[in-house]
Order: sequence, then C-alpha cells, then structure tokens
Amino acid sequence: MGRFRVGVLTGGGDCPGLNAVIRSVAKSFLLQIDAEVIGFEDGFLGMIQRRSRPLEYQDVSGILAQGGTILGSSNKANPFEYYLDNNRDVSQEVCDYFEELKLDALVTIGGDGTMSISHGLVEMGIPIVGVPKTIDNDLVGTERTFGFDTAVHIAAEAIDRLHTTAQSHQRVMILETMGRYAGWIALHAGIASGADIVLIPEVEYDVQEVARVCREREQGGQRFTIIAVAEGARPVGGEMVVSSIDETSPDPIRLGGVSHLLMEQLKGMIKSEIRATVLGHVQRGGTPTAFDRVLATAFGNHAAFQASKKEFGCMVALQNNQLTEIPLKEVANKTRTVPLDDTLMYAARAVGTSFGTQNLPAKRMRCPV
Amino acid sequence: MGRFRVGVLTGGGDCPGLNAVIRSVAKSFLLQIDAEVIGFEDGFLGMIQRRSRPLEYQDVSGILAQGGTILGSSNKANPFEYYLDNNRDVSQEVCDYFEELKLDALVTIGGDGTMSISHGLVEMGIPIVGVPKTIDNDLVGTERTFGFDTAVHIAAEAIDRLHTTAQSHQRVMILETMGRYAGWIALHAGIASGADIVLIPEVEYDVQEVARVCREREQGGQRFTIIAVAEGARPVGGEMVVSSIDETSPDPIRLGGVSHLLMEQLKGMIKSEIRATVLGHVQRGGTPTAFDRVLATAFGNHAAFQASKKEFGCMVALQNNQLTEIPLKEVANKTRTVPLDDTLMYAARAVGTSFGTQNLPAKRMRCPV
Amino acid sequence: MGRFRVGVLTGGGDCPGLNAVIRSVAKSFLLQIDAEVIGFEDGFLGMIQRRSRPLEYQDVSGILAQGGTILGSSNKANPFEYYLDNNRDVSQEVCDYFEELKLDALVTIGGDGTMSISHGLVEMGIPIVGVPKTIDNDLVGTERTFGFDTAVHIAAEAIDRLHTTAQSHQRVMILETMGRYAGWIALHAGIASGADIVLIPEVEYDVQEVARVCREREQGGQRFTIIAVAEGARPVGGEMVVSSIDETSPDPIRLGGVSHLLMEQLKGMIKSEIRATVLGHVQRGGTPTAFDRVLATAFGNHAAFQASKKEFGCMVALQNNQLTEIPLKEVANKTRTVPLDDTLMYAARAVGTSFGTQNLPAKRMRCPV
Amino acid sequence: MGRFRVGVLTGGGDCPGLNAVIRSVAKSFLLQIDAEVIGFEDGFLGMIQRRSRPLEYQDVSGILAQGGTILGSSNKANPFEYYLDNNRDVSQEVCDYFEELKLDALVTIGGDGTMSISHGLVEMGIPIVGVPKTIDNDLVGTERTFGFDTAVHIAAEAIDRLHTTAQSHQRVMILETMGRYAGWIALHAGIASGADIVLIPEVEYDVQEVARVCREREQGGQRFTIIAVAEGARPVGGEMVVSSIDETSPDPIRLGGVSHLLMEQLKGMIKSEIRATVLGHVQRGGTPTAFDRVLATAFGNHAAFQASKKEFGCMVALQNNQLTEIPLKEVANKTRTVPLDDTLMYAARAVGTSFGTQNLPAKRMRCPV
Repeated sequence: MGRFRVGVLTGGGDCPGLNAVIRSVAKSFLLQIDAEVIGFEDGFLGMIQRRSRPLEYQDVSGILAQGGTILGSSNKANPFEYYLDNNRDVSQEVCDYFEELKLDALVTIGGDGTMSISHGLVEMGIPIVGVPKTIDNDLVGTERTFGFDTAVHIAAEAIDRLHTTAQSHQRVMILETMGRYAGWIALHAGIASGADIVLIPEVEYDVQEVARVCREREQGGQRFTIIAVAEGARPVGGEMVVSSIDETSPDPIRLGGVSHLLMEQLKGMIKSEIRATVLGHVQRGGTPTAFDRVLATAFGNHAAFQASKKEFGCMVALQNNQLTEIPLKEVANKTRTVPLDDTLMYAARAVGTSFGTQNLPAKRMRCPV
Repeated sequence: MGRFRVGVLTGGGDCPGLNAVIRSVAKSFLLQIDAEVIGFEDGFLGMIQRRSRPLEYQDVSGILAQGGTILGSSNKANPFEYYLDNNRDVSQEVCDYFEELKLDALVTIGGDGTMSISHGLVEMGIPIVGVPKTIDNDLVGTERTFGFDTAVHIAAEAIDRLHTTAQSHQRVMILETMGRYAGWIALHAGIASGADIVLIPEVEYDVQEVARVCREREQGGQRFTIIAVAEGARPVGGEMVVSSIDETSPDPIRLGGVSHLLMEQLKGMIKSEIRATVLGHVQRGGTPTAFDRVLATAFGNHAAFQASKKEFGCMVALQNNQLTEIPLKEVANKTRTVPLDDTLMYAARAVGTSFGTQNLPAKRMRCPV
Repeated sequence: MGRFRVGVLTGGGDCPGLNAVIRSVAKSFLLQIDAEVIGFEDGFLGMIQRRSRPLEYQDVSGILAQGGTILGSSNKANPFEYYLDNNRDVSQEVCDYFEELKLDALVTIGGDGTMSISHGLVEMGIPIVGVPKTIDNDLVGTERTFGFDTAVHIAAEAIDRLHTTAQSHQRVMILETMGRYAGWIALHAGIASGADIVLIPEVEYDVQEVARVCREREQGGQRFTIIAVAEGARPVGGEMVVSSIDETSPDPIRLGGVSHLLMEQLKGMIKSEIRATVLGHVQRGGTPTAFDRVLATAFGNHAAFQASKKEFGCMVALQNNQLTEIPLKEVANKTRTVPLDDTLMYAARAVGTSFGTQNLPAKRMRCPV
Repeated sequence: MGRFRVGVLTGGGDCPGLNAVIRSVAKSFLLQIDAEVIGFEDGFLGMIQRRSRPLEYQDVSGILAQGGTILGSSNKANPFEYYLDNNRDVSQEVCDYFEELKLDALVTIGGDGTMSISHGLVEMGIPIVGVPKTIDNDLVGTERTFGFDTAVHIAAEAIDRLHTTAQSHQRVMILETMGRYAGWIALHAGIASGADIVLIPEVEYDVQEVARVCREREQGGQRFTIIAVAEGARPVGGEMVVSSIDETSPDPIRLGGVSHLLMEQLKGMIKSEIRATVLGHVQRGGTPTAFDRVLATAFGNHAAFQASKKEFGCMVALQNNQLTEIPLKEVANKTRTVPLDDTLMYAARAVGTSFGTQNLPAKRMRCPV
C-alpha cells in the first residue's frame, strides 16, 4: 500500500498568507504522515491544463513570510465553465486527471468562487477540504479569513499617513479600501485609524449627512475630516460604482469608483478641499502580518488533519474562536456582511464615527443617573 | 440631578493600546451620555496621592495610535499595601477620595495586579469595571488582551531579521521574548516567523533535545537554527532565571536570563556559533497594531456600556470571540497558560517546530491509508 | 537690549519632516541663544492674516516623529498675489506685520513657491533663511530635500507588495508615484524595488517599447512586469496628463492621470491583465524615516546658525554631502530634473530596467576581453 | 576569445543590502557585457576550500529585497592566516584556485577585514575591486556604506517604542546600539528619535554628567530620559566593555556590556528606575531600507564598471555624494570615527542632546543681538 497522496491549489485573487497555508498543509502531510504532496499550478487552471508538480520539503521551506503564492493562481478558471474553451464544462476531464494522479485528497485554498467550484467537484466524487481565503473577510461560516488582518493593517497605516496631511491642510481626505459586498476592511481600518466617517456597502450613505459631518467639523475647529470608504459603498438609491482597477472587465481602466463619485457629490457642499486615494492592490500583496501567518498555519494544519481523517466536503473555519469546519454547500455563493447591530458598529459610533446616515439602530448607552 | 461622573485609570506595565482604551471609554461617556470623565494620574498612585484631572474631548482626541498612556501608570502602587508608606493599608483613604470626587463609576485598565486591587476595592463599595491588559495574554477569562498582537508582531519581525543572519553565517540564533508565566508570545511569534525551536514556561526543555535538533539541522544542510524562548522558560528540573531587566529588584542589572543560560548550556554541544538577543521593552512600547487598536476600542466601549448599566464588579472579556464580562474575583491572582493540547501547539509541531522535549501529547495526524 | 526674536513658517504641501525642522529651528534658538520664537499659522496665510503664536520649548517637544506641521500650511497664499483678495499684492502689509512683531529673522520652510516668495520678501527687506522642502527632491541647489527619503520608502514598499500579486497572477502592475516635473521618486523607488520599467518626465516614453518589454517578459517566462511611473511622465509627443487628485483645480476629481493613459495605451498590445495603483497623498504624510529626521534636524539647525550670524537671503542646502547655503534667487522658479547620464540612470539600466525608450545615452560598460 | 569571467564574494558580518550588491554586480556583467559570473561560497572560506558556483540571471533575480547573502559569508576565514589550518598562510593556494577558474576579475564585498585581505591578494596579482560594507559606517574613504541606513532605521524605531514606556513610567531607558569603534549608529539613531543622551566611543562619558542630566529632567517635569549608547562607549578612563553577544570569543555569553555597566553606575545616583535593551543582531539582518537598496545597487554597478575598465586594487566609494573609488591600501586597517566638530554633533547638541560630558568644542551659535 502506497503513501497517502494529496493535491493542493490556490484559487482566486492574491492574498497575504497563501504561501503560509501551502507550507502548513505540505509540512503537515510530509512530516506527520510522510504523504506525497502535489501542487496544481495556477489554481483550477492547472487541474484543467494538467499542470502539477510535486512539493517537497525544500519547496515549501522559507516561504512562510512571502506574499503571493508559489503555485500561482487564476481567478477565472472554472472547470464547469472553462473560459478558454467557450465556457465548456470540463469538470469530468478534471476528475479524470485527479484520478490519474492517484490522489487521495485535495486541499483547495480560495474564496467564494473556489468554494463553489470545490462543492461542485465534491459532488462528482473528489475528496476536498477547503481553506477560506479572502482579504474582505466576507465568507460565511468563518469569523476570520487569513489576509484580512494584513489588508486592515495596510489600510489603517495609509489612513494614519493621510491624517497628518489632512490636519496640516484642512482637508477632507478620502481613502477607498477594498470590500465590494462587505465593509469589514473599511470598518476595521476606520476604527483602527480613527476615521471620522466610514462608508460601507451595508449602509447606504446620505451625501447630505456626509457633508453635514464635514461642515460640523470645519466649524468645530477640527480642520479636517477623514473618510474611509469601501469600494462597494453607494449613496441612498444609487448603484454601486466599483472602480475598475480590480475588474477583469472589458474596460480595465477607470480608477476610483465610489471615491470619485463622492468627491463629485461633496464638491460645492463643503468649504475644504477634497483629496482621494484608492489603495487598490497594495492591500492584497506582500508579506502577511504575524496574526495572518499564525491563522494561515492553523488553517493549513487543520485542513491536513481533516483530510487525514478522510472528512471531506467541508471548509475549515473559525467559529467562536475555535478551529472547526462547515459543509462546503453552506459556504458557496454567499456573502457575510456587516450586521447593523455588530458590536464594532456600536463601538465605532460611540467614539464618534459617522456612517453617513441617521438610519441606524438607536444608540446603545443610556444615561443611568 | 447632575451628570454621570466616571473615573478612569491605567495600572501596571506599559502596553500598546492603553490610550486607545482611554479614548474609547472617555468618548463613549462624553458623546453618548454627556458624562464627566476624570482621569487618575499614574494608576492607583493617583488615587492614593489625590491626583486626578478632567478628561475633555480634546484631551483624548488624536491619541488612538499613540503608545504609552496619557494618564501615566505605576506598577507598584497598591492601596492595600502602599509601598511609599511602610506598606500601610490606605484603601479607606482611596475610597474617601473617590467619594469626595462624587464619582458614579470607575474604569480600571490593567493586568492581574490591577484586577486584584479592583476586586478588593469593589468589596469596599467602589463601583468598578475592569479592562484586561497584558502583552502576555495570560489573563484568565478572556481569549485576548490588547497589546498582545503588537508584542507578537514586534517579536516576529525581529525573528524575521535574525533569520537572514543565521542563514548567512550558519548560526544558532536565540530570541528571548517576554512571557514569564505563559508562553503565548513566544508560541505565536515562533509560529509566525517559522522558528525551529520554541521554548515556553509550560514545557520544561531538555537541553539534550534542543542540542539534538540543532545538530540534526546542521547535518541536514539547513545551516542554521532559530530559537524563540519565553523569558520564563526553564530546563527540566531547573529554576526560572528571569532576566532582571524587567525587574524592580534591588539588582536591576542582569541582562538575559534564560537565553544566557541556554547559550551556556549549548556551548560545546553543537558546532555552530550561538548568538542571543533579548528584545525586552521594545515589545511593550510604541504604536499598537490595527488589530489591537480595534480590540482596545471595543473593550473600552464595552466597559463604558457596562458602567452605564451599573453592572460593576466585572472585567470585560472576549470569549468565543464575543465581548462579554466576567466577575473580577474569578480573574484575580490567576494565570492563563498554554495548554499542551492547544490547537496551535499541534499546528506548530505539525510544521516541524520542536518544543525542546519528547514529552508532549502524541501527534494528532494518523496516516489513513 | 532684548532677546533675539525669530519667526518660522511652513509653506506648500505636506511633507514628512516639517515638524522635525520646526523643532530643530526652535530648540536651536531657545537652547543656544535664549531667543524668542514665533510661529506663523498656515504659512504665508498667517503672515497675511496676522495669525502667529509663540513657540515655547514644550510646544516643540515630542513632535520630531510626527507627520504634518504643527503650524499648519497653505499652498495658495502668496502675499504678492493674495488669492482671497482679488490677487492683490499685500506684501507691504506682511512686511508691516513682521515689523510690528519686532522680529529679527524669519525661517521659511518650503519648496519652490515658498522660496520664490521668500526671495521677493528679502528684496523688501525681510531677513529670511529658507529651508528646502519637497518630497519630489527637485529643488535646485541642494542634493537632497527632507521628505524625499520617506516618499521613496513608501513607494518602494508599495511596489514590494504589488510584486507578489503580479507574480501570482501574471500581470502588468503599474504604480504611479508623485513627481510632476522630475522623476526622482519613481527612479529611486523603482531601483529600490526592482521595477522592470521606470517612466519619468525627463524621458518621453514610447508605448511600443513599453509593450515590447512586457511581451518579452511574458515570453521569457517571467510572468509579470512592474512599472513605476512618475505622475509627470508622458508619451513621445504627448501632453502631461497629471492626475487631478493633487490639484487645486476647478475639477478636483479625476484619478489616475498617466497610469490611466498607459493602461489604455497598453490594452490590446499585451496579453497580461493590467492593474494600476495611484499612491497619491499616502506618500507625503505620516512619520518621516530616520534619514529624513536627521536631515531635517541638520537643516533646521543650520538655518538657525545662519540666522544667528545674520546671513540672510539664502536657502540652506546639501552640496557634496555638506551643509551649505545658496542665494534664494538662484533657487526661485527652477526645477532640478534627472540628468540622462545620472549615475543611477546607468545603474538602473545596467540591472535591466527599461525607461520605455531606446533613445538614451549609450551604455557605459564595454567588454574588456 | 572567451567571455569575461568575474568572481564575487561576500565577507564579514551580515549586512542588509549584500544581496542587492550581488544582484547588481551580476546583472551588470550578465546583461551589459555577457560575462560569466562565479560566486564563491561563504566568503574567502569558499576561495580556500574551492567552493564556487556559477551565478545565472535567475539566481540573482528576486533577491534585491532579501536580507542576508545568498552566497553565505564567513567572518573568520583569512587566507593569510587560515584559522582551520593552524593559521597557516594559504594565500598562494587561493591564487592558484583563482587562476584555475580562469577569472578575469574579482569583486569582494565586505568591511575593514575583507578590504585588508583584498589588498593583500591584489599585491599577489589578483585583480580585485572592493565594495564597502559595514552597518557601522566606519570605513575610511567613503561617506556611506550600505546597511548603515537600515541599522539606524531599526535602532531609531526601537527608541521610538521605548519612548512611550519611559514616558508612562518615569524611567531612564537605555538602548545599546552596535558601533564598537565608531558611534555613527548611536548618533544618527539618537538624533532621529530624539534621545536625550547619546554616548559614543569617540567621547568618553562622565557618569556624573549623565546622572546630572537625568536628575535635571526628573526635576524639570519631563519624567523620563532616553539614552542611546554605542556598544563601544566607555566612561572616562575606563575600558571598553563590549557585550560578548557579537563576539567570537571563547565565552560568547555575556549580554549587555556598556549598558550593563551604565545601569550599575547610575543606580543610586538617580531616583527613576532604569531599564536597558541591547538590540544586537536585529540591527544587521532583514530587508534593507529603500535607501540602502539604491546605494547597494549603485555600488555594485560601479564595481562592475571599474572591473570592466580593468581598474583594480580599489574600493568603490561615495565621496562628496559622488560615486568614486579609492586605493585599497588606503582603506585597510583604518576606522572612520565621528569628528567632535561634525555638523551632526553640533546639531544634536543644539537641540539639547547631551553626550555625557562637558568636554566638547564650544557651542556654535552666538546671540547676534
């Protein structure tokens, strides 16, 4: 009887910590049960195009702190709808290749899209454990995804830097963070850096209210206003105007979606000059924070543990601060958004942060005297 | 009927995020219920010496990212045993002062010692809510304390830097982190930076085993070994030899406790040169990470919320990743150490980290083939 | 006979190190010759609007590492053409105010514009020493300005982060840095982070050549290309299309000038996806690097030294790595651009960096064999 | 006629930027004149032990930002006195090996020791160009060495962090930096982080004066004092007590030389508690700053340029902020120390920094009124 053989791939957009997960999965298998580890290149594209290579100890040694993924990724390659072949369903060929490689398990590291595909492949018989990845932290079933802490760290550091310019020049400074469907990055970075206004997709903003806060600060002598806005935020009744820098759209050139719009809207309503910065991909590359390296290592090891127990069809997750797992089908095609009564929403408002609207649950504290 | 009046103090050693908590407590009270906020200077010393001052909005504005505490701290001033007055019990005077100030509540931000004193004062009738603070993350009742993430971040960054020197010179590099009674910092920083050996107070290390790992790596061509050691780690049967740089001892001059000992022990047992670095206070000063700023803000707001509901005698806490609170008496004089079967202990071992002993629970993965 | 009285102001855009200069000027005067120091608020605007305040030791203590300027700045207030009063010449009123304040000297910290105004005021009899400030490093007469090292540091760090995404996804990543008339930031940051292509205002780029380099890398298996582009770069025969985020223009909303254009131009010419990031104001805010803090302190002290010797009408400068000074009139209205035969231009090309054209001086190395 | 063949090695202690130089030398030769590049392993040890390997483009691609040296180093291997062979002179064997490899040139990257050896080998006929490396910045003939800026950056960041603890706790905090014979790191880091006292090898400190400054600050209400001390600093009439953590001494275990001594001396003379941190090797590992990456790239390219012109026996250098070169014999066995009338010495004193003595040149500023 041969050695246990496991495949691993990374799908979707770049995310700090991918290499830390790959290393943890591979070392767990290599060192604990002397398994053979095979990496697919460029995510599911490698499964479709039959590109894979063995991962030995030295291949995954020294990659913990590196950004990116040594395996490469692809965020378009869906075996059920292969974009390079007229959107044909090539899933059976993928299963055949998996079979030929005599793999006993597959670990897929990715976001929403990767988990949906993984769910489909599980239904076709491939034994998969998923590892949740998204800098947006909007996957259902897990409190945290690796990469999120790093994205928040970078965004907060950028706002820290903008603060001094805003203060010196009496300006309104806008920082557009990632977060198309959920505002977690903007919320956390906004709290971490003391943004005065935080705009997120979950709360439609009222530009009159945004302008009112800016003016109140102008008059109150604070001289500046910092706005953290998630790319997916939108005005009351408005459409999402996501910047196209992160798009694979036919027109990949428009920079600054909602921050552009917001500048346009605010112009004339307030006295201060307005400046905007769109952080873009800087948030998703580079070395992960210590927090994300630890979480990525824990996730990778837990995925290996699950696979060694032959418990497939699930995604590893953090719930109640414990490592656990949930069925892939519960993850696919869903988004975890910020609840309006989230503890951090209350905390942010308590320290004076505006969400650009008056339409939020009543404040939590009452005077007891 | 007057405004609600609340006091706030910071006790014990410096910790990144103290100002973020002060700001959150003060702004929550000032903005939400128009309370009056009074800060005691230098922790309980200010309560004893009758030194306090009002905290207005502008006093706590712009301090979120600053290290240290604008209120000052003291890690020796215990009202029940006042070191500047023959260890006399001055607690009644402290209560009198509290009374005179007509305060309705007190928020104490501190560690083990601060919570013990707070518990004693609650028993004398002072309405207190505690906020847990320790870079060591070893307070019982809460999964996380603010400051810990920053300490881990700094220690991991230091190990990242030592890695390249170790590699270039074929050396054994030791980094001594804080953590006298619990190894959380060394464990997290060690995982985050891929340390080869992690020594913590919870696991007595066998110097023969440490040397064996170093030699195995020498022979395996890896050319270097990185050891992360908590200051409270000790050899089998040995005493703790904590470095005195963090002591208020009569002899505050010995640098490098356990790392000193370890170098001495390893000398002659291995071929490589050995170098040690004791990070010391660099771990506990400076600006907090984004993670710690968010946690500190949430803790501060939750403490204010508790106080506004007149629920006293408790410490706010994070349990199952939720903000909650636990009775002060359950916190006092206890330490939360790393369990040997902690998920991260398994994860660390799975990726090849040695804890300097063979005496640990059996490995978790079994080959399923 | 009274104490020596000196005024200080900061003009123009925000720049890391302004506070370090203010502190150095003020402390040098306060501690060395017990002078009185008066700060004008918001640059020349404070001189026009008669807003000034004394700077005592405690006002400038602890500001060394802070970004921004405690005095505030204005980048539109020109006494010779006052924008808030129909561009009227109010320079005589400014001189009167200076007289009334009984000042013996004035230290102006600023860029090209500030030095031009200073030159004008010197001609009217105000005793001024200038301190050169621009993150762009394009002031004539000085090899270095403070703030430049910090801007390069931030831009290089951003490119480091983009590298991993580019690599993981086989992309062309564009980072737009500041530098409207000179390419120093893009050149230094590009070298520091190993950008493959660097586009600067001094060298008109040929989009065919840019595309050729990208394609050559695609085919050579390098999978990605990093482009650092100064905001003032332009194609052969093209106009500058500076992004309006840094403008005080009537339409302050267009994001991404040349990086926008470049994406548009490259689209269709290469296979890889293209992404752009415009760092913007993140480059000019926040804490200065150690290098800039030292330089700012040296400049501030040298300015104080000059003023104490009553040598006015000059700007302090770094030449041949020595502190010196040059006449203000030699600085006004000029720009120091990157010479095509600059040592760093050769070094960059030697390690393989393309400047988007074939029209550059011949390579420097010749094979000696 | 064959391709030009050039060898490269890195000698001495680890230093941020070594890989950037290797990359620049190798790429300059590979891309500009299609030379063959051979790397010796572990510095001169590789020349003695006949260990070398070709360096191709892909070997030096992606190493720019990496700390350490991909070639390895050795700080004991001297061919004129080979420590592994009874200090025998093996220089002729080294020359023979060089001959056998048919090399046309050798680039040696290292400090004082490496330049001395290089000088010796040049006299035996080996065509060498040296590249200056030392984090201490104390090589004669060059204003700057790469690695220095990174060391200063790390030390200044550490002092920034210590500041907040000192302030919160009313302490004297000592940071011991590297710098055995020259105080450049302590001087620059001290200025950059606003240290109150800077102690360097060039100025014997008077402990009475150090204590006086601390006490004056205690009384003046500043509550804390920050001391930056170079490891080679010593009291008046005292010996150097360099910490042994950086020694290759028989007893490599004593931590904290001068900071240890200073704590001992100050104890009892001042009221505040004292804490010390010895940064150690953290200063010399890890990724270089942008400044050092640029300087390393420029040095590497200039060395290649010199070698291609067959101008040997020199070390590349920065003089008057220009790349140039000086004869190796002028560099060997000398140290560039801080002159007492250095501009930065005046600037530091002007902003209030004490050097622990009254014996310094008279202050520079005079009141002109």
